[in-house]
Amino acid sequence: MNILGEVKFDSQGLVPVIVQDVRNLEILMMAWMSKDALQKTLSTGKVHFWSRSRQKIWLKGEESGHYQWIREIWVDCDGDTLLLKVEQTQAACHLGYRSCFFRKMGKDRNLKILGKKVFEPEKVYGENSQRCTHEKD
Amino acid sequence: MNILGEVKFDSQGLVPVIVQDVRNLEILMMAWMSKDALQKTLSTGKVHFWSRSRQKIWLKGEESGHYQWIREIWVDCDGDTLLLKVEQTQAACHLGYRSCFFRKMGKDRNLKILGKKVFEPEKVYGENSQRCTHEKD
Repeated sequence: MNILGEVKFDSQGLVPVIVQDVRNLEILMMAWMSKDALQKTLSTGKVHFWSRSRQKIWLKGEESGHYQWIREIWVDCDGDTLLLKVEQTQAACHLGYRSCFFRKMGKDRNLKILGKKVFEPEKVYGENSQRCTHEKD
Repeated sequence: MNILGEVKFDSQGLVPVIVQDVRNLEILMMAWMSKDALQKTLSTGKVHFWSRSRQKIWLKGEESGHYQWIREIWVDCDGDTLLLKVEQTQAACHLGYRSCFFRKMGKDRNLKILGKKVFEPEKVYGENSQRCTHEKD
């Protein structure tokens, strides 16, 4: 069956989407798609999400140029989660890291930053750079 | 800061959790944790979720023996998604596949089963075997 008929959107019309680097299998981020965002992603080849904070469709990279280019789309067993394998331009995270998952729990249960910055947010986003959710969700 | 203070649970007290195979980086599944489920996961070393359908904490593998053993926990930039890297006993999916993401979209936008079955659900779960959500969510 066509993917649009297989995906089960929740009561708010959204589905969670895991984004994975198709090259090294690193998890880059998690965000949400509406049906329209999925359709736009399919028709353009570039990942579009639904921004819950801004209540509108958002092209990932629209401001930064850090696009995600669709290579594979997988659907889970009960159709309520998507897995996208993408080619990531530059970096996924607004804070300058390649992946939004740059903090790992240590033995003391505290979080430690292990990711390395690959760009300076101020140079890309200007004064909005501290808001990780700015372009993310 | 301690992980329990860093994670932002949503209005229902839940956080989405991505589960990744620590060995080959395959995405195994996505499910939800409550604060209690996260605490049980930390104290036992075995992944516990919150079952939205059954409204209770659920030890992944409690019926099948297909446990997920915590190796790494990562938190995303805005603290509202967890990434767990685990050692997966046998398989994550109730339908007998290693990963719940066993269906890939083809060029015709239809889904195709590409995963291989690694166990027979009837032998593990009996008559409940058709319900993927049975032990999942």
